[in-house]
Amino acid sequence: MSKPTTSAAFGFEIPAELTELADRIGAFVRNEIIPYENDPRWGAHGPSDELRRELNALARKAGVFAPHSPEEFGGLGLGHLGRAASFIAAGYSMLGPIALHCAAPDEGNIHLLEIVATPEQRERYLKPLASGEVRSCFCMTEPAPGAGSDPRQLATVARRDGDDFVISGQKWLITGAYGAAFAIIMARIEGGEGDGKATMFLSPMDAPGIVIERALDSLDSSFTGGHAVMRFDGLRVPASAVLGQPGQGLRYAQVRLAPARLTHCMRWLGSAMRAHDVAADYARTRTAFGKTLAEHEGISFMLADNLMDIHTARLTIWHAAWLLDRGEQGGNESSMAKVICSEAIYRVVDRSLQVLGGLGVTRDAIVERIFRDVRSFRIYDGPSEVHRWALGQRIAKGELSY
Amino acid sequence: MSKPTTSAAFGFEIPAELTELADRIGAFVRNEIIPYENDPRWGAHGPSDELRRELNALARKAGVFAPHSPEEFGGLGLGHLGRAASFIAAGYSMLGPIALHCAAPDEGNIHLLEIVATPEQRERYLKPLASGEVRSCFCMTEPAPGAGSDPRQLATVARRDGDDFVISGQKWLITGAYGAAFAIIMARIEGGEGDGKATMFLSPMDAPGIVIERALDSLDSSFTGGHAVMRFDGLRVPASAVLGQPGQGLRYAQVRLAPARLTHCMRWLGSAMRAHDVAADYARTRTAFGKTLAEHEGISFMLADNLMDIHTARLTIWHAAWLLDRGEQGGNESSMAKVICSEAIYRVVDRSLQVLGGLGVTRDAIVERIFRDVRSFRIYDGPSEVHRWALGQRIAKGELSY
Amino acid sequence: MSKPTTSAAFGFEIPAELTELADRIGAFVRNEIIPYENDPRWGAHGPSDELRRELNALARKAGVFAPHSPEEFGGLGLGHLGRAASFIAAGYSMLGPIALHCAAPDEGNIHLLEIVATPEQRERYLKPLASGEVRSCFCMTEPAPGAGSDPRQLATVARRDGDDFVISGQKWLITGAYGAAFAIIMARIEGGEGDGKATMFLSPMDAPGIVIERALDSLDSSFTGGHAVMRFDGLRVPASAVLGQPGQGLRYAQVRLAPARLTHCMRWLGSAMRAHDVAADYARTRTAFGKTLAEHEGISFMLADNLMDIHTARLTIWHAAWLLDRGEQGGNESSMAKVICSEAIYRVVDRSLQVLGGLGVTRDAIVERIFRDVRSFRIYDGPSEVHRWALGQRIAKGELSY
Amino acid sequence: MSKPTTSAAFGFEIPAELTELADRIGAFVRNEIIPYENDPRWGAHGPSDELRRELNALARKAGVFAPHSPEEFGGLGLGHLGRAASFIAAGYSMLGPIALHCAAPDEGNIHLLEIVATPEQRERYLKPLASGEVRSCFCMTEPAPGAGSDPRQLATVARRDGDDFVISGQKWLITGAYGAAFAIIMARIEGGEGDGKATMFLSPMDAPGIVIERALDSLDSSFTGGHAVMRFDGLRVPASAVLGQPGQGLRYAQVRLAPARLTHCMRWLGSAMRAHDVAADYARTRTAFGKTLAEHEGISFMLADNLMDIHTARLTIWHAAWLLDRGEQGGNESSMAKVICSEAIYRVVDRSLQVLGGLGVTRDAIVERIFRDVRSFRIYDGPSEVHRWALGQRIAKGELSY
Repeated sequence: MSKPTTSAAFGFEIPAELTELADRIGAFVRNEIIPYENDPRWGAHGPSDELRRELNALARKAGVFAPHSPEEFGGLGLGHLGRAASFIAAGYSMLGPIALHCAAPDEGNIHLLEIVATPEQRERYLKPLASGEVRSCFCMTEPAPGAGSDPRQLATVARRDGDDFVISGQKWLITGAYGAAFAIIMARIEGGEGDGKATMFLSPMDAPGIVIERALDSLDSSFTGGHAVMRFDGLRVPASAVLGQPGQGLRYAQVRLAPARLTHCMRWLGSAMRAHDVAADYARTRTAFGKTLAEHEGISFMLADNLMDIHTARLTIWHAAWLLDRGEQGGNESSMAKVICSEAIYRVVDRSLQVLGGLGVTRDAIVERIFRDVRSFRIYDGPSEVHRWALGQRIAKGELSY
Repeated sequence: MSKPTTSAAFGFEIPAELTELADRIGAFVRNEIIPYENDPRWGAHGPSDELRRELNALARKAGVFAPHSPEEFGGLGLGHLGRAASFIAAGYSMLGPIALHCAAPDEGNIHLLEIVATPEQRERYLKPLASGEVRSCFCMTEPAPGAGSDPRQLATVARRDGDDFVISGQKWLITGAYGAAFAIIMARIEGGEGDGKATMFLSPMDAPGIVIERALDSLDSSFTGGHAVMRFDGLRVPASAVLGQPGQGLRYAQVRLAPARLTHCMRWLGSAMRAHDVAADYARTRTAFGKTLAEHEGISFMLADNLMDIHTARLTIWHAAWLLDRGEQGGNESSMAKVICSEAIYRVVDRSLQVLGGLGVTRDAIVERIFRDVRSFRIYDGPSEVHRWALGQRIAKGELSY
Repeated sequence: MSKPTTSAAFGFEIPAELTELADRIGAFVRNEIIPYENDPRWGAHGPSDELRRELNALARKAGVFAPHSPEEFGGLGLGHLGRAASFIAAGYSMLGPIALHCAAPDEGNIHLLEIVATPEQRERYLKPLASGEVRSCFCMTEPAPGAGSDPRQLATVARRDGDDFVISGQKWLITGAYGAAFAIIMARIEGGEGDGKATMFLSPMDAPGIVIERALDSLDSSFTGGHAVMRFDGLRVPASAVLGQPGQGLRYAQVRLAPARLTHCMRWLGSAMRAHDVAADYARTRTAFGKTLAEHEGISFMLADNLMDIHTARLTIWHAAWLLDRGEQGGNESSMAKVICSEAIYRVVDRSLQVLGGLGVTRDAIVERIFRDVRSFRIYDGPSEVHRWALGQRIAKGELSY
Repeated sequence: MSKPTTSAAFGFEIPAELTELADRIGAFVRNEIIPYENDPRWGAHGPSDELRRELNALARKAGVFAPHSPEEFGGLGLGHLGRAASFIAAGYSMLGPIALHCAAPDEGNIHLLEIVATPEQRERYLKPLASGEVRSCFCMTEPAPGAGSDPRQLATVARRDGDDFVISGQKWLITGAYGAAFAIIMARIEGGEGDGKATMFLSPMDAPGIVIERALDSLDSSFTGGHAVMRFDGLRVPASAVLGQPGQGLRYAQVRLAPARLTHCMRWLGSAMRAHDVAADYARTRTAFGKTLAEHEGISFMLADNLMDIHTARLTIWHAAWLLDRGEQGGNESSMAKVICSEAIYRVVDRSLQVLGGLGVTRDAIVERIFRDVRSFRIYDGPSEVHRWALGQRIAKGELSY
């Protein structure tokens, strides 16, 4: 017989404690969260904060709250593979990540603050955020001609004024702004250290000069607080409000984005599994033309394709999470994971909706709601085209291969 | 030089009077209808009847009302090619077909009644419908295990009771039921002529025994009255309420469906053109990474694919309309057109949304709303899979070729 | 009832004389040409000239020879729609276009010469070519860094020497060079009229200075003479050898290419129909897992998709041919037709091969051979990417819409 | 900071000894094997046995011969992950697996014999095969109406005659038959133990009653001995020729097929990497329209998609190999891997060919040859449709999920 080549260094066996946690989260979501999916407090602009707090309480009680938050702040303190296991399980209901407090943008903001914040910022901003006391928002994207896919077009400026900065500019599609306690703001410094470069700032949302202009109606509906159009109207912040170093905003954005993209993949992979289950269950019972839908190959092939897309998405997530846990930046891998997963997840949900037929386009099945989210995911955190462009450029320069 | 082979019998030149009409409708939609797209009376369950009547009045004034209705009832009396020219132009706004009174299900019901109705039915039902005085609904689809994709699973029964029929059963996803003046009802006769066979009946919606249980939330949002769940609770109708012959329901459903599918293609092709224009305009002005989006091949290739999909969809519609105008049934061609167009149109709108990036997932651009409609179109009037199944069966039996 | 809107100006009815001709060609191909498909004279580098002449004789006898050649030279003198009808029928066997003398590059060369040649050139070159006495080749593409997809990189030069031109340069992938009687050569003039610009020249292939270096092994196998690597080693031609005006080479290339691309679409659409028929016949008889392949939806859906791809490809060809017959240049439409048809045709043949399973990858079925040709077609006469690029550029500039 | 969750039980780190081996094989293939790719002994029916032996000698000398063969027979005795590392590296040239003696069908036959053969069979058949002294073939597939995709249609019979069996029947698409020393034959026993059931037999190829009728021309060209049509004409074998238990043929076929499918994925993934490298190198130097091809996003996006397809294919292979190394059957995972990898690999090579343009369709680049192999791979060892069917059936029965 041949020698097995599995060594300690190679394997796909999820550690037992993570499997157990994922099972616990899975059961929690099925039993305690899914019943809330018809709650009227989950509206077109996402679940209300009241609903969110109610779900947070359930998660805390079940011992599954905030898998990614530091233990000192009441979280489980898990790394990227641990997040993969937990967030996929949580995503089985789009309210699951709300309950576990691991939804965007808070989850990514916690990650960023944990790495970059000063002790004071940590105490003032990270602690209440990581513990789920408050929510936050991340103010980067701007209306044309400002920063959309290209962060170098950043138009919001932070003018130095003595030791302070005065921030002015417009922001657009700011997730969770309504109801957030504080904001991380990306702006271009004018004058002094970091002059002309993107920089991150922290500010309470109730500071004078922060104006939420209006809510945006959007295709997706799972983010607490929805998406907003905002304006900084001479927002004055002290030097201590700079997050990290002046002029390092783009670098921090990458620190935040690489894992943030991946946690999006995790959560929505869970949603795709849900959509598949709903479709497969329906296909096994609904009849047409003399047999169940699932007995029609035209349908069963679609369900088989679902499994294959889920399989490759999951492997891709595991691989990238493993890289990040090793301390690698994983920029290319997280870019690839974003494209691979967002497109595979989308196909799964699109097929599931199609299998459901008329039922699929109504809110009588949860798939319609998932579909609207995962379609948006092909755009959030960099449309597929931006990642293909970045990967392609590196290949063109001979810097990147398989 | 070679002999030109274009004879009178072959050509793609749209008659001048149709081109002129399409241009007129196009200008009307751009100038008078598009401004209504942000009207709050266009909600999640479609435009309100008040809004519809306001738009109808504009269309009448512009001389473009009801291109498909008989001239005696105030329409333009056009055939299928004429409808193609008009409906594509109307569809440039999803409110266009509402304004022209050529939206589903009324447009298809007018077509069916024109062919099958008795003089009395014509006077009582077709006349007010064709003239836009009232709306109607078509009650065919049922919840599981009733008739969904497979009409032979029809579970609603019409029991003979003397000269009357007593109709009982449940209906589901009934478009336009709220606010409709009358319904065309598909039910299975029990006893007498047509026993056991699907039959169509006409009934005012305010008849005792018709219960609208609830509105369905749905992905699409362009149908007046939205979609409803209904119940027939011993609805009593006289023999004169039978539409056409007893037992001929499935045949009439085909008479209605073949052109109705095609008019869906027409209207939503117009919407796809709109989505493309919105995306192309944006791509020509929005910059990223040093040039306009449209100067990025990754984007311009998508816009080129849009043109090709629009081209094949339009040719397919023209061809099928031409066949129907010749008096052919065109069942296979309309099935093919439904799949080809719904999928091509969907791709166009999906790409357009993607080109718009973050803007695409918000209601700040109309594309988000079009997207939700055209995704549903891949299911309405027979999901792609049902048409592939039907075409495939005929190929398998050696009955159908290119 | 509605008014039929079909006027003389719009219709898809192929003129009876063309239908009759297509039927005649179809029968000819089935009865007289297909039996030659196993002839050993059809090798990896295409059919031999001996075989070609044998097939030409059969076509002449059957009265279907050279539908596109002027009547004065023994052809049928048909325009573009006539060619569509004939070439699709001929393409049902890849030897059909060989038999009818309507294969590339001769067919395109006849078209070009008919439009551009002087009376002397017409007598010397067009007459024997159009009548099928001889074959020709078209020497445009060059090895890197010369003209590949981008004709402006033309590296072959024609240096003026008194009244003569002396041509030097390398050519690559020159179809039909082996056995051709003459060549149309694209070269850049140095000096005098047209200086620096691409120009076309005519030369007998046996002129000193024309060297065929070697045959290229290639994926496709239906071109008489295969593809060659060539060299012009100081080829001296007189001023009368210039085809059309000096410096107008790129323009003439377009005159040739727009219809030449379209005739490729026609011939290979015929091949795709053949592949579909072979696959459908097999699927109706071969059993697996308890029923015929065609009774498996997984297969019948593929056959249904074949019909839809054939349908859109055919409509696209008809439309572009109709435009050309009206005297329009149809550059955009022929670009779109090239991409739409080459990709649709490819999908049809790819699916057909897949349906045949193991049989599909062997030469026991003709589909393997068709597959290799149609894969190449996605590259010949401009890869899809070049056409998408050109269309996309025009959209980006606001010059092109649906 | 979060706790890293990578435990000994989870990781993607290839053991150093395998990385080192893969590097060694990679260098060997690049330096010593690729130069043979233009050797005329590699013809349309695969490399000749003379060439094979020459390459085997090189591999032995380089210490990389037969990674999968037991060490007692001169191999490296590696398990499935070890094979993954080696075979992917070997596949970088399609002659690599020939050199390393790890091509189909021998590699799969070695695996099967190692598990099922008696000590005598092991000595007589496995030893010379595993050591590369001889080649073998696997006689399962039959012409219609025999066993193609559905092994239950097996038509070859093995009639008991005393202690012997007399085998009669036809076989089709038998890879490597020409030049093989022995065959594994699948036949249905008539009478006695295993009556009516598929059984495997071993026989020398020079036994009376084995007739190779003819070679099949095929799309692919990398198998030594090509593919043949064969006949068993009363082949008499003793009871000791039964491989394993009578009537267990289908089970053994699965034992062989699950890993054999996976090793196909490995080898052709190596080829896809090669195709990508050839295309990327070309794209970085060839210019068109003012820049290199790789600077055109239309091309660089294709190269980016290549990387993503290679990434998911590789992860899928690793995962399935890891499962097999753990002793799991991995039937579903190997089915999924076959579909995922064969389709991803095909897309990579198809794109690479397209990027090469005209060069891609000629044998001047190796991609044309790889393309023909990987197209066939979508059919070999079960067309995608058979795997989707099998997976879909299990989903329909509720037996299989993600």
